[in-house]
Amino acid sequence: MRVEIVAVGTELLLGQIADTNSAWLGEHLAEAGIDSHFHQAVGDNHARIVLAFRTALARSDAVIVCGGLGPTQDDITRAAIAEVMNVELVRDDAIVERIAEMFGARGREMSDNNLLQADVPRGAAIIEQMRGTAPGLICPIGNKVIYAVPGVPYEMTEMFERAVLPDLHARSGEGAAVIRSRVLRTWGTSESGLAEAVGPRFDHHNQGTTGLTVAFLASGIEGIKVRLTAKAPNEESALALLDDEEVHVRSIINKTFGDIIFALDEHTMEDTIAAMLIERGLTLSVAESLTGGLIASRLVNVVGASTWFRGGIVSYASDVKYSLLGVPEGPVVSAVAAEAMAEGVRDSLKSDVGLSVTGVAGPEPQDEQAPGTVFIGLSIAGRATSSVHLRLPGDRPRVRQYSAISALDVMRRALSAE
Amino acid sequence: MRVEIVAVGTELLLGQIADTNSAWLGEHLAEAGIDSHFHQAVGDNHARIVLAFRTALARSDAVIVCGGLGPTQDDITRAAIAEVMNVELVRDDAIVERIAEMFGARGREMSDNNLLQADVPRGAAIIEQMRGTAPGLICPIGNKVIYAVPGVPYEMTEMFERAVLPDLHARSGEGAAVIRSRVLRTWGTSESGLAEAVGPRFDHHNQGTTGLTVAFLASGIEGIKVRLTAKAPNEESALALLDDEEVHVRSIINKTFGDIIFALDEHTMEDTIAAMLIERGLTLSVAESLTGGLIASRLVNVVGASTWFRGGIVSYASDVKYSLLGVPEGPVVSAVAAEAMAEGVRDSLKSDVGLSVTGVAGPEPQDEQAPGTVFIGLSIAGRATSSVHLRLPGDRPRVRQYSAISALDVMRRALSAE
Repeated sequence: MRVEIVAVGTELLLGQIADTNSAWLGEHLAEAGIDSHFHQAVGDNHARIVLAFRTALARSDAVIVCGGLGPTQDDITRAAIAEVMNVELVRDDAIVERIAEMFGARGREMSDNNLLQADVPRGAAIIEQMRGTAPGLICPIGNKVIYAVPGVPYEMTEMFERAVLPDLHARSGEGAAVIRSRVLRTWGTSESGLAEAVGPRFDHHNQGTTGLTVAFLASGIEGIKVRLTAKAPNEESALALLDDEEVHVRSIINKTFGDIIFALDEHTMEDTIAAMLIERGLTLSVAESLTGGLIASRLVNVVGASTWFRGGIVSYASDVKYSLLGVPEGPVVSAVAAEAMAEGVRDSLKSDVGLSVTGVAGPEPQDEQAPGTVFIGLSIAGRATSSVHLRLPGDRPRVRQYSAISALDVMRRALSAE
Repeated sequence: MRVEIVAVGTELLLGQIADTNSAWLGEHLAEAGIDSHFHQAVGDNHARIVLAFRTALARSDAVIVCGGLGPTQDDITRAAIAEVMNVELVRDDAIVERIAEMFGARGREMSDNNLLQADVPRGAAIIEQMRGTAPGLICPIGNKVIYAVPGVPYEMTEMFERAVLPDLHARSGEGAAVIRSRVLRTWGTSESGLAEAVGPRFDHHNQGTTGLTVAFLASGIEGIKVRLTAKAPNEESALALLDDEEVHVRSIINKTFGDIIFALDEHTMEDTIAAMLIERGLTLSVAESLTGGLIASRLVNVVGASTWFRGGIVSYASDVKYSLLGVPEGPVVSAVAAEAMAEGVRDSLKSDVGLSVTGVAGPEPQDEQAPGTVFIGLSIAGRATSSVHLRLPGDRPRVRQYSAISALDVMRRALSAE
């Protein structure tokens, strides 16, 4: 089963928005074990949309169309599908009623345009709309099929998971399999290192006989992800496969690299830190030099941060480090300075934990230290203050981003070793 | 002249990276007045790349291929083009020599793989490489053409502007026109408002007779851009057209909205602020509550920030505002608190200017203020301390981002009114 993605919208061709829908669909098709060999983008033009569909149907078994299902004159995906199916559009009374109800419930007047969304190519099945007004469509064409979903990302993803993916599986003769995945997020090793260590599990599974696959995804400043994907007859058995495999993979990773798994799935490093601080009843403050507020701004993105985050001091000028944080006069890119900063901010903001970063973002060296030189300081009530020295690669913004997540990871490991 | 973009790389189909190259090319083709009706993405597979090229050549006049020109086994764009051209690949000695020289200069050993980059379809012209090792190609096919450029963004953009765009103009019979554009970046009004005010200039130019076009681009947390694009026989006359039009558009915008143009082209709000502070010999410090370090982290991204940026205090907990910044006990989401924070941080960090933000990011109200309520405080040596009250839309991250750029803009306007 080969699926082609067609994104509809002139704004995509003009580069006004990036085509993140196609990327998302590509990722989730791959995860479900379905091939996608081509993507296309096409503007809001009837003849060209028809041509894009015919091209896609000639070289793929199924087409997922994103966009062009809304209520405006630009939204012509329905008509283009009808032409390719060689049928007419028929207004669906049940959809008309649902759209009218939705407007009624919101107390808004409905313009007639909105009824265009109730037009359905004869012979197409409807994917009911849960979140917006435009329903999706399943349009059989010979032994092939076009799925049409809205371009609004959260409507698209919901319809894909609820209706498109199950239909694809049914058509490919695999029955109503359930696909679930779990992502182990790591910080502190390389993709090739992880791939080598986890290689035996990869080889064991990726033959297609165990119902599981293992994949590695490099995610830049967010580390490397190990994704486990299970295909099973039902949710319970899919989750059981994942639970079992997670134990294997965790054990290999922990034995080879130590405690580098910082979170699961969509959780971030700062989510993990928030949970650890709350569990231990600790508060945190940060002293930042080269990261210049980046760590603090990541931390406050966690909802409810005010229960554990006290704040921070961005000590960019050296004399601010001396005067506000009690750093001893001397080189400020040093272990001594990092440790003094962590103690100083903890003292000044009256928190249980103080985390600090000082270093050289570049492009010029500072204190005779090369760009990428970073010291992370950590002070925890009742423990000895410590620091970690790193050499990070990359340009100025990258050194800063790597430093921020590295500092958070240093704290995470220290707290979990408690 | 219709140009189709083909992005090559399995990682695009898998959604591991978003296809930002195609968006960039689409934007710049449109800016140059060249139509692009279709984009395709295809994986690293010979037969499928060939099929994508044939599809593109059937419906477009020219094809720009991004990616697959590197030195690994995955890089098969050259061979696919040769097949479509029905010619063989010939190793180019001059390219071999340049690659060998480049490795020699970097003191690195060259593996034989790298010589694959010297293979050129017979009859193709070479776009010399300025930044990497893989040259680009201009491959005529009948009266059509395939341009191949590397997938590395900065190599792709450089080759597009230097070689692909001039060749496209030459082929379209428009002679060696020069296209130059200028972007006026604004903060503080809506796209529709700008479009209405600048409407007469838009109507005047966008008929295709003046050599100029005007476009509006909404850029989210970076405001609205007004892009002027001039097409002229040479650089000098293109720039003269832009200079002249910039005066007209600036005058309209200033009269209608006041001082909302904060920068030109790729310059950011913080670049403008850095230049103003340097010119006036002033230093800056910031006190942040709801932005949690976001303003500071934007400021330190400017190279050389240490000459004017002293640092900041992230006073997330209320008592940190009282103890470190001298905010009077009471509601911390208020004009009084914002002003005290600005004065407090200026005093504590010994800077000439103190900028502060306090407010409610949500999702819950605070101090009986709704999410999106923001106060910005500003204290400048020798001037009365002031504050601005805003109500910002959006969710938690968006309120925070809007607050950061709004605060910087408040300071910019105050400094420019000096």
